[in-house]
Amino acid sequence: MPVSINCDMGEGFSLYRMGDDAALMPFISLANVACGFHASDFNHMRATVRLAKRHGVKVGAHPSLPDLQGFGRREMKIWREELANCIIYQTGALKGFAEAEGIALHHLKPHGALYGMAARSEDMAHAVADVAEIFKLPVLGMSATCQERVCKQRGVAFIAEFFADLDYNDDGGLIITREHEAKDPAAAAAKCVRAIKEGVVRSTGGKDVPVRAETICVHSDTPGAAAIAKAVHEAVQPYF
Amino acid sequence: MPVSINCDMGEGFSLYRMGDDAALMPFISLANVACGFHASDFNHMRATVRLAKRHGVKVGAHPSLPDLQGFGRREMKIWREELANCIIYQTGALKGFAEAEGIALHHLKPHGALYGMAARSEDMAHAVADVAEIFKLPVLGMSATCQERVCKQRGVAFIAEFFADLDYNDDGGLIITREHEAKDPAAAAAKCVRAIKEGVVRSTGGKDVPVRAETICVHSDTPGAAAIAKAVHEAVQPYF
Amino acid sequence: MPVSINCDMGEGFSLYRMGDDAALMPFISLANVACGFHASDFNHMRATVRLAKRHGVKVGAHPSLPDLQGFGRREMKIWREELANCIIYQTGALKGFAEAEGIALHHLKPHGALYGMAARSEDMAHAVADVAEIFKLPVLGMSATCQERVCKQRGVAFIAEFFADLDYNDDGGLIITREHEAKDPAAAAAKCVRAIKEGVVRSTGGKDVPVRAETICVHSDTPGAAAIAKAVHEAVQPYF
Amino acid sequence: MPVSINCDMGEGFSLYRMGDDAALMPFISLANVACGFHASDFNHMRATVRLAKRHGVKVGAHPSLPDLQGFGRREMKIWREELANCIIYQTGALKGFAEAEGIALHHLKPHGALYGMAARSEDMAHAVADVAEIFKLPVLGMSATCQERVCKQRGVAFIAEFFADLDYNDDGGLIITREHEAKDPAAAAAKCVRAIKEGVVRSTGGKDVPVRAETICVHSDTPGAAAIAKAVHEAVQPYF
Repeated sequence: MPVSINCDMGEGFSLYRMGDDAALMPFISLANVACGFHASDFNHMRATVRLAKRHGVKVGAHPSLPDLQGFGRREMKIWREELANCIIYQTGALKGFAEAEGIALHHLKPHGALYGMAARSEDMAHAVADVAEIFKLPVLGMSATCQERVCKQRGVAFIAEFFADLDYNDDGGLIITREHEAKDPAAAAAKCVRAIKEGVVRSTGGKDVPVRAETICVHSDTPGAAAIAKAVHEAVQPYF
Repeated sequence: MPVSINCDMGEGFSLYRMGDDAALMPFISLANVACGFHASDFNHMRATVRLAKRHGVKVGAHPSLPDLQGFGRREMKIWREELANCIIYQTGALKGFAEAEGIALHHLKPHGALYGMAARSEDMAHAVADVAEIFKLPVLGMSATCQERVCKQRGVAFIAEFFADLDYNDDGGLIITREHEAKDPAAAAAKCVRAIKEGVVRSTGGKDVPVRAETICVHSDTPGAAAIAKAVHEAVQPYF
Repeated sequence: MPVSINCDMGEGFSLYRMGDDAALMPFISLANVACGFHASDFNHMRATVRLAKRHGVKVGAHPSLPDLQGFGRREMKIWREELANCIIYQTGALKGFAEAEGIALHHLKPHGALYGMAARSEDMAHAVADVAEIFKLPVLGMSATCQERVCKQRGVAFIAEFFADLDYNDDGGLIITREHEAKDPAAAAAKCVRAIKEGVVRSTGGKDVPVRAETICVHSDTPGAAAIAKAVHEAVQPYF
Repeated sequence: MPVSINCDMGEGFSLYRMGDDAALMPFISLANVACGFHASDFNHMRATVRLAKRHGVKVGAHPSLPDLQGFGRREMKIWREELANCIIYQTGALKGFAEAEGIALHHLKPHGALYGMAARSEDMAHAVADVAEIFKLPVLGMSATCQERVCKQRGVAFIAEFFADLDYNDDGGLIITREHEAKDPAAAAAKCVRAIKEGVVRSTGGKDVPVRAETICVHSDTPGAAAIAKAVHEAVQPYF
């Protein structure tokens, strides 16, 4: 399976900017585009889809819980059908911009709190899979989670994601920090290559833990994000 | 050209209801479905698309200026591209629900203040036409307006709308009231038939003014809306 | 301690109405006024404060989690300080309308999911108490909850609430239904009097469980709400 | 009349930042704090009020039309009472944070499109004055406008504002640019001193046009804003 590099994109809103999307585009394969519920609005979505298209980067939906003020980072109790409707709305909206620019949607990756909820809860994972089925899109998520299991069960395509700029604990779990720390680009790149070739990552406890890296995620708000993306891109390119 | 009956639908939000959609569906051909910017949300949109499908009613987008608190009734200064983006977002979102239910979008009808702005301003009319082109949808609007002229120029399909429950002045202009008044169903139906057959309507000043009635609009918030819709439906059916 | 009757009020939004506030006002002492985060907006708040003032009804803040689309009924993970800020914003906004009408705010009662979260979680209860201290307002809540304990600890005034139109289980817990059921007004009134005089309520399991009734809550969306409020008002008036 | 320096502050939202408030605070007297309708939210408002208090800077409300996505820069048709309600809501909310921090509100300055609308329209100016009366606050605005005239008529205090970093045309009108241009700090400071002492400004056409400078506005999004604020502060201090 060829490997890709994905990045959350288009997370500005109104006059606000977040992340240097233009600097990162040359080094990524997939843009996860915010859909207006944690960030972005109709103007930013149009501009981001255009930017991705110009760089030949594929566009995926990056839907969120309805929580613009909290940037989609607060967990919320929500029913499966309500969540599915929430994701259909956002994915449909983004697909509208893709149609406007003459490209197709490529994938679906839940954002923030929703990403974690779908990794842990059967119901939430099903809601994501419900929408993936409707739009016939693969889901990006962490391997060995509820999301992966539900997708496999239902025959929904699933692409396992590895994080270039986050650390893993001894159980293979991600260590999520509120502010992403700066990382050495070369080390991050080497970590990705090892994850792809050997299927392991060195944990913060010094153990080699199993991971699956079918797509590499680089965060645009990690300090030095473009340098990391560039290094990862060069190292990972042979596996594209 | 066959005539249709259209009605604004799905204008609830959160726990709020507006209009008795289920009572009106049997009598209409086209549902103009609110897209979350003046009314509705992802749950109401799903339910409304399902309801329309069950009744064999075609679904169109009913986008608005971004003004939920004002129900899309406040004019706003907005640029053409920004407005086009705003409408793409909403139309795409609704199309997502249409895809979820396995039906196609049928038309585009701007809501409230936007309807009037696009009838009077070249730029606003172009924004609507920009989106109609992207989604390959006909635009519903009043004849002899900027919106019709722009659509004709650009080769965008346009369907001229006649209002069963509103009065016309001597210039053929609509008399828009904040609260729609009750109307006699039989009189409303007769008015529609005359508009279709003779292309005229008796104005409030007592003159016969020219109109075009390719689709008849019935408002769901007019008192006795279902009775009016039923009467219009029976009278207009021969022209379907 | 004199007893009062409170009711959630002003829960319309935009063109939407909810509950017949005008019909209920004659029978209540305290209006819990929605502040724009689960329902209401600046126009509804002004109108509701005016209506309460005209009836000599005291006005309290009825703040919510930031969740207009979900009517404040979805639990959400939120930090104490963030929640306190969220409630300050809403309470301040309502106080602005009270100032505009020349009256004072009287109390604070969290809405929906927040009411339950503050009843169970120390942190959430503290956030409510933080705001009650700032505005020097008593908190309305259920007795024997985290919210009461935290208020007592901190010396924040607390008024124990009894629900005229909801049932209690054998543990004294409220049975919250999504749609409130119709209740016999006379029976509801008798239940309130017994709660005030004897401090007990007959549970759904047929047991007398202890309750405290310093204020009686009547819901405006229970079918026949005005008749219930009228009956409760007549029966409870001697304890005002 | 002593002169002050004012600056729009607290215009972040969610995770977004705008302007370096902390760098500007030492050089200003009045902070116009965004109230959540064009920018800011309950967390940013709390933090901004705290920051201002720490610097001994007075806090005023900076309310907007309800247009977060458009940063309050789109004109909107709105009635006087509706606009007054809209401003009461925001001013009350900010006053809540002022109470939380133990300070008083100092003034009221409409934001963006609303600033211009109130300068030109009697009705809009009255709406602002309605709220200024309720909260007993002076209004900041441009001299020789509808806003000033209405305030004078009604006995509402008015403070005439001069812009350090904007140019004036030959009629004394402001030249508003979408992106503020960099300005030479020394020249900006000299311009302010001349406006204060002589009541004139050199227009872009090379004429001396009359102005009134009772408060000097420095924009936080002008490139080099802190350097301009510092220079203006030093030059203007004798007139405090």
